[in-house]
Amino acid sequence: MSVIYGRVALIGLGLIAGSMAHAARRAGAAGEIVGTARSPETRAIAEEIGLCDRIVETAAEAVKDADLVVLAVPVGVMGRVAAEIAPHLAEGATVTDVGSVKKHVIDAVAPHMPHGVHFIPGHPLAGTEHSGPRSGFAELFDNRWCLLVPDEATDAGALDRLSRFWRALGSNVETMEADHHDLVLAVTSHTPHLIAYTMVGVADDLRRVTDSEVIKFSAAGFRDFTRIAASDPTMWRDVFLTNKEATLEILGRFTEELFALQRAIRTGDGQLLHDYFTRTRAIRRGIIEAGQDTDAPDFGRVKRG
Amino acid sequence: MSVIYGRVALIGLGLIAGSMAHAARRAGAAGEIVGTARSPETRAIAEEIGLCDRIVETAAEAVKDADLVVLAVPVGVMGRVAAEIAPHLAEGATVTDVGSVKKHVIDAVAPHMPHGVHFIPGHPLAGTEHSGPRSGFAELFDNRWCLLVPDEATDAGALDRLSRFWRALGSNVETMEADHHDLVLAVTSHTPHLIAYTMVGVADDLRRVTDSEVIKFSAAGFRDFTRIAASDPTMWRDVFLTNKEATLEILGRFTEELFALQRAIRTGDGQLLHDYFTRTRAIRRGIIEAGQDTDAPDFGRVKRG
Repeated sequence: MSVIYGRVALIGLGLIAGSMAHAARRAGAAGEIVGTARSPETRAIAEEIGLCDRIVETAAEAVKDADLVVLAVPVGVMGRVAAEIAPHLAEGATVTDVGSVKKHVIDAVAPHMPHGVHFIPGHPLAGTEHSGPRSGFAELFDNRWCLLVPDEATDAGALDRLSRFWRALGSNVETMEADHHDLVLAVTSHTPHLIAYTMVGVADDLRRVTDSEVIKFSAAGFRDFTRIAASDPTMWRDVFLTNKEATLEILGRFTEELFALQRAIRTGDGQLLHDYFTRTRAIRRGIIEAGQDTDAPDFGRVKRG
Repeated sequence: MSVIYGRVALIGLGLIAGSMAHAARRAGAAGEIVGTARSPETRAIAEEIGLCDRIVETAAEAVKDADLVVLAVPVGVMGRVAAEIAPHLAEGATVTDVGSVKKHVIDAVAPHMPHGVHFIPGHPLAGTEHSGPRSGFAELFDNRWCLLVPDEATDAGALDRLSRFWRALGSNVETMEADHHDLVLAVTSHTPHLIAYTMVGVADDLRRVTDSEVIKFSAAGFRDFTRIAASDPTMWRDVFLTNKEATLEILGRFTEELFALQRAIRTGDGQLLHDYFTRTRAIRRGIIEAGQDTDAPDFGRVKRG
């Protein structure tokens, strides 16, 4: 238990900030945790469940004397929040964020940051399909990756301190360049989410296949898509609007590939399909070996006899 | 514990047949279980782990005096196996299958079935990403659905007996018409699998995003796709080749919808994206309420604090 930041301000109290509060307490990494959210209802719930040491009404108030400020709001409002807190930031404070897109956040936030404040963008690769102040839990970041996006001007001491904080919360930490981050995430997260949303939307639209049948017989694969497609709509809208270029590029590759497989189905090219499906198995093995998932069948939802 | 079939013959000893053997034993639903597989290696493993009471070398031998014959081979070879066993089937025996496609299996198998044998196609909606004789376990069918596809000529007593057998194995049972089955499954299973295979293939192809990055940072959504895309290549090749029409139809709807969302991203139509993502959340709630998945975050892979 060693305090890394005397006062941590969490702006926005959803799944990520809530989990950060739980994990920081577990580690004793923060002297005091101050939280705020735009919605009075969210603040009331956070107050009720004791999520932070102190809940305040505005972001400006929250960042007062904070050593670390975490912007945990949808990517689309990061700029507005940065403008709001800028005049109230303490000299030497570190400001970070947890947005799923980095280039846009840097463009929106960096111009507002006063001299003497360390702005180090970040992105913890962790989440669930749940959202809101009650959804957080201390283990969310355990053995997951947190990507930090410093630039040449970033203070080495401030970067090291933020890295230690994320490690105390359970994460592995790595640094990455903003454009590369946005491309990697377009592949591993943004495009898969859009596809899952689409597939679930298609099922919902089909009138001949009634809702109850889709739901009843979902265990055959569709079910895993619905978990992904149950994620927070505002957060994901902003991700797609702000990582437009990389997402559209990967989507283009995806449809190209999908059309090739579709054509193989139409022409009855079993060899192509079999080869393709064999190749994708290897990636799964890599993920299990990297400790990023369980090999238990069906994610361990069922037990072996 | 009440024996429903005196002798059950399992043709093919993969995940499904293996799990049926375990589940039938758990329930005491079969007097004797005889198994066979084309590959000598599979038969040797089944023998070694005691998967069945008896392992024989040929399907013709396996079905001798069997009260229930289960065709648990890839959909593409069902017809060949049916032709092989036909002369050896006992009068009054029931033949069923576990294929993911029903129209094609009926067309391939039914013509071979001798008079006095009850052919009742079936499809247990259960599975994992693992395959082979070691992958089965007794709980696979618990609380899952098994769809049986009788026609007007099906003997009511034989249908009732097969239904009781599947219930003894842990399943819920429902009957469905073949074409409708193939459409429902194209939505809930076949198209989602093709899409997952495609997305994983795209990630594999991208040279700028190295393999290790895709694997390391997979937890952000992609990981769930890789589980689906690790399923048995032969089984899935056959599914797409034999449920061509329905899969292509649903794929067509999928790409139409995907293009609409892609266009919304390109034009910055946040309202459309937000509305779409909000609608898909409701389906997830339905699946949780129907008891077909866990509401634990991330499938219960992580624990709440």
